[in-house]
Amino acid sequence: MKLSGIGESGLVERIRHLLPRASDALLGIGDDCAALRPREGRDLLLTTDLLVENVDFTMQTITPFRLGRKTMGVNISDIAAMGGLPRAALVALALPPETEIEFVDQLYRGLQDEATRFGVELIGGDLSASPTLVIGVTLVGEVEPGRAVTRSGAKQGERIWVTGRLGASSAGLLALGAGFRLRDDDQVEAPSDVSTELREAVRRALNRHLCPVPRVREGRALAEAGLASAMIDLSDGLASDLGHLCRESGVSARIREDQVPVDPAASAIAHYLGKDAMTLALHGGEDFELLFTSSWEPTEIHDMFSDGPGVTEVGEVEEAGHGCLLVQRTGNEVPLAGGYDHFRR
Amino acid sequence: MKLSGIGESGLVERIRHLLPRASDALLGIGDDCAALRPREGRDLLLTTDLLVENVDFTMQTITPFRLGRKTMGVNISDIAAMGGLPRAALVALALPPETEIEFVDQLYRGLQDEATRFGVELIGGDLSASPTLVIGVTLVGEVEPGRAVTRSGAKQGERIWVTGRLGASSAGLLALGAGFRLRDDDQVEAPSDVSTELREAVRRALNRHLCPVPRVREGRALAEAGLASAMIDLSDGLASDLGHLCRESGVSARIREDQVPVDPAASAIAHYLGKDAMTLALHGGEDFELLFTSSWEPTEIHDMFSDGPGVTEVGEVEEAGHGCLLVQRTGNEVPLAGGYDHFRR
Repeated sequence: MKLSGIGESGLVERIRHLLPRASDALLGIGDDCAALRPREGRDLLLTTDLLVENVDFTMQTITPFRLGRKTMGVNISDIAAMGGLPRAALVALALPPETEIEFVDQLYRGLQDEATRFGVELIGGDLSASPTLVIGVTLVGEVEPGRAVTRSGAKQGERIWVTGRLGASSAGLLALGAGFRLRDDDQVEAPSDVSTELREAVRRALNRHLCPVPRVREGRALAEAGLASAMIDLSDGLASDLGHLCRESGVSARIREDQVPVDPAASAIAHYLGKDAMTLALHGGEDFELLFTSSWEPTEIHDMFSDGPGVTEVGEVEEAGHGCLLVQRTGNEVPLAGGYDHFRR
Repeated sequence: MKLSGIGESGLVERIRHLLPRASDALLGIGDDCAALRPREGRDLLLTTDLLVENVDFTMQTITPFRLGRKTMGVNISDIAAMGGLPRAALVALALPPETEIEFVDQLYRGLQDEATRFGVELIGGDLSASPTLVIGVTLVGEVEPGRAVTRSGAKQGERIWVTGRLGASSAGLLALGAGFRLRDDDQVEAPSDVSTELREAVRRALNRHLCPVPRVREGRALAEAGLASAMIDLSDGLASDLGHLCRESGVSARIREDQVPVDPAASAIAHYLGKDAMTLALHGGEDFELLFTSSWEPTEIHDMFSDGPGVTEVGEVEEAGHGCLLVQRTGNEVPLAGGYDHFRR
């Protein structure tokens, strides 16, 4: 059945029954506002994001369940990038009236599934009609006073680190373009006969692209230890996001190509498609790993990341002036030009 | 110049300089999240809204400055409807790259102007590209613990009240359809020669439609006095919003047509256009007055509203069963069917 068949109040009722009553929320869904009691002595973190169909995503390559998970995940990542603990979410949906109710159910199941993984409660939102699907998510997190890790604290002489490995998400996007698909049961559909190894690489890359894992635990650990001087999550790509961090901190940076942790899945897919894996790692977006700067010793930082996605030193912070430089394997230094600009695509 | 000319980071810089540094905010614009220190011992209210061009508004009939004011105002109204004090806002914009920068400047000036009137600080947001303009606003407010006025507290035997007068906003919408316009200097452009009286009525109606005034002071007074048992703001229209309140409270209602406060501007415009003013007052949306229920005596309530938009008793809460009834001037009782449904337009 379509939304036009059950109407707005029918849909509100349906969503209300789909979602568990949030324990943190003071009110259920269905009032003018959501209400939340903040934990005493915590600062609030707030982030908001708009996703527009056929601009930020296409239903040709993602299931509604995964779209819900990803939408929630990338907003949680913004809280992680400040060292915060995500807590509550509001979801505003603008939907075509001819949307199938099953689509909305699956989208909410995905939002709820990802929220639950990170202790986030869906406490409210808004529904309206629109010719194309638009999703607006607002996330509320909290952090100990003065502990939020901003983009602006990097200082000359500090080391630059990234969590995990890079490039798999944009390799996944290339795989989608080449006709690979990931079903909700995690099976890969390939456009032609491919090796088991490539199929596994594509599975990993598509999971990274379609269901990125926000690094909440790692961001919290860094904030609690007071270890990171500046931090950002890699949404636009290392080159672009490092540029943001340097601009806000008033510093330059030097990245060493031979230290950049390229995801093996990115290497395998790049090789299969005749692309350059390092380009994916440096300029591909949506890895949602954390990039941070620190004056701490490498051993201390490695100790902290002894389990989980790992952490790699990729370069150092330098005084303002030359922007971001990449030291290539050959020893050549080139500007690390980035990256994604919404208005200059 | 167009957005594609200055790019995303150019636009972020421009907005950063356009807005005053928020005193409540712990961070300026430009980080992964906004940060806010909540006042101790207050509950948080959160509301979010998506506005899509050519669905929720058209640039044919509103200037970017007024669109900014209205967008902020209607979200502030959601906080007012809970008896809360609005405090901070996040604004997410999805814009076509060919948008003129001047348009974005004016939109932000309008958002900021309305925010300032109500002590709200713009602390963050998000920018992205989209073929049509989409505005996502999230508002954070606060209220004393347990004082938030929900939709669900109305009880049989209580009186039903509305602030202000109704129907002017939808009369303004009709006036726009008839070719009237309101310039930013508050002058009315009429499609033909009209009387001074009608011109004044149109000015008032267009102001009500294009720049609705959220009833923050009235909502706060009701919450602080513990006077309202349930409350909602009139966004979809009296019939529809009373229906929401009755459904959430599990009650019925009876409204008396001869007590409904019709705005004189609605009467004048309805007369000029051959429409029924009472229909506008009962079913027209976007008046953004408050509808509330109370067991208090009328004299006590009138005393509280001795200045400002005034308040009118329009009916009473009854036990569940018959829904919302309208007692017409003739004495006939008819169902007060409402109203606006996003998916059944």
